[in-house]
Amino acid sequence: MRIAIDAMGGDHAPGLIVQGALEAAAEWTDTELVLVGDKAAIEPLLKGQKPANVTLCHTDEVIGPDEEPVKAVRRKKGSSMVVAGQLVREKHADAMISAGNTGALMTTGLLVVGRLDGIERPALAPMLPTMDDIGVLALDLGANMDAKPEHLLQYAIMGSIYRTKVHGFDNPRVGLLNVGTEERKGNELTKAAYDLLDQAPINFIGNVEARDLLSRSCDILICDGFAGNIMLKAMEGTAGSLMTFLKDAFGENLLTKLAAAVMMPKLRTLKKKMDYKEHGSAPLLGLNGLVMKCHGSSDALAVKSAIRQARITIKAQVTESIAAEISGRS
Amino acid sequence: MRIAIDAMGGDHAPGLIVQGALEAAAEWTDTELVLVGDKAAIEPLLKGQKPANVTLCHTDEVIGPDEEPVKAVRRKKGSSMVVAGQLVREKHADAMISAGNTGALMTTGLLVVGRLDGIERPALAPMLPTMDDIGVLALDLGANMDAKPEHLLQYAIMGSIYRTKVHGFDNPRVGLLNVGTEERKGNELTKAAYDLLDQAPINFIGNVEARDLLSRSCDILICDGFAGNIMLKAMEGTAGSLMTFLKDAFGENLLTKLAAAVMMPKLRTLKKKMDYKEHGSAPLLGLNGLVMKCHGSSDALAVKSAIRQARITIKAQVTESIAAEISGRS
Repeated sequence: MRIAIDAMGGDHAPGLIVQGALEAAAEWTDTELVLVGDKAAIEPLLKGQKPANVTLCHTDEVIGPDEEPVKAVRRKKGSSMVVAGQLVREKHADAMISAGNTGALMTTGLLVVGRLDGIERPALAPMLPTMDDIGVLALDLGANMDAKPEHLLQYAIMGSIYRTKVHGFDNPRVGLLNVGTEERKGNELTKAAYDLLDQAPINFIGNVEARDLLSRSCDILICDGFAGNIMLKAMEGTAGSLMTFLKDAFGENLLTKLAAAVMMPKLRTLKKKMDYKEHGSAPLLGLNGLVMKCHGSSDALAVKSAIRQARITIKAQVTESIAAEISGRS
Repeated sequence: MRIAIDAMGGDHAPGLIVQGALEAAAEWTDTELVLVGDKAAIEPLLKGQKPANVTLCHTDEVIGPDEEPVKAVRRKKGSSMVVAGQLVREKHADAMISAGNTGALMTTGLLVVGRLDGIERPALAPMLPTMDDIGVLALDLGANMDAKPEHLLQYAIMGSIYRTKVHGFDNPRVGLLNVGTEERKGNELTKAAYDLLDQAPINFIGNVEARDLLSRSCDILICDGFAGNIMLKAMEGTAGSLMTFLKDAFGENLLTKLAAAVMMPKLRTLKKKMDYKEHGSAPLLGLNGLVMKCHGSSDALAVKSAIRQARITIKAQVTESIAAEISGRS
């Protein structure tokens, strides 16, 4: 299999992106990695020791983190991100991985890689942290701001396939993000989606509330991109504010500093649990090939684990399964 | 002024509701309180000492916490909640306060008390906690699940009047809940609402993200009821899970228990900061009279402080100001 890496995207590009790719290349010699980016910047990082399963695809443009996504993708056809997308579209690569501009990556998925037949909207599917560290696969978390009930149905089918094939879940529980657990709760979108999900060939457990997610009240959370993003940022913000409060409280005087020393391992565990960056890369599902989004701050380890995840997803034939399931329905 | 109290609504009704009302009656002798509820249940609570400014309005039905709101309000016309609403509609009371079924109270507001001319949707406007303990007035937090841009505009105008007149803010900052702070972010609703808010006679500061709310990035948060409810429950759930984790961690062994003893005052402060029940009653704005919702678990102090808040709101002529402002625009 072959995986294209956008070597120029992310806060630590190309240094740590290339380093992560080299570590992955050493571990998985059956996988060919294509480093897409500026030759002059990447070659020195290889230190004259390019592994046999690493190739370089030179590009001379980069999409910056603050560029307007659609404009950037349309204009910078020679950028590392767009070229990596072209490799996937033309079947020269089975997947692409990028830690670059999220909006531009979603646009690359949609306009360059392209949707699978029958998929109306691709979905971004990251893991939400849970207290038991298993996590909830949530989709869509921001690829599409306005969703229709049929989109939510497709998210549920794609999420069920991914969670089963990649994470090894047996009959994963699908929950619909809503304002209450009762059946008739919600807005027009969730009420209509409820009926569709209820009849779909998935393990739909009904509505779930945002407050129960950290206790993993479902394995797959279905939501529109707007509500999902609001939920995620509310969780992030609350966790962040509480950790800041605790840090200040523990730093106050000698006694509290002693208490902090006692509690440090637990606090580290908590911080790690709630760190939304720790939870790996997120696939963009519903495309004609695999696109994986890494967090902008990804280091070598994050890149390597994204490559691991892409390998599993490719081997499990997730894209092919989604195509078969959705085509079979349309 | 006269305030109707739904004596039968809430987890601690009628006991603590009546107790709170009696305490308020003693403190504010210029305010007449009408206890609406079952005479046989309320009279023993008065212990033969009914203050001159307390009257009793007998009802023999109660809307339960799990009843379907619209059905309950339509069928139980003799319930304490609906009768309290009728007192407001017929101008026998300036306000009503209830700790009962939230959905039924919103329905009572809409169907019994009635909307102000020109108001398309009333809004529930509770305070969200902030780390500085000042709070953010958020509307709508669940009165209407599907909002139009024009509704969000009316929420912003009503919220600005309330925050200015009741909380004494000078030119309060209005933020629009969104997935990013840039102007063109969001779904169709927020994009259209942005333009309306930008032209309104309010202090609109643009889009705000859920993660910055605890740092009080605005004084008034505008959102549709669905997204607002998701946000609130995500914050509540995250705070709750973190507090549970800390409680367990501090209880683990002798050393951690000592650390807990040192940190206890701080942890209590944090718990109080994040307790969404602590932040008082919420007005339902846009109605033809004041309706105040107390939390279901309200105790006597909560009821008394709701009465205080109602007094301020009545004196500040919030309903009249909203009527004047909205009529002036329509």
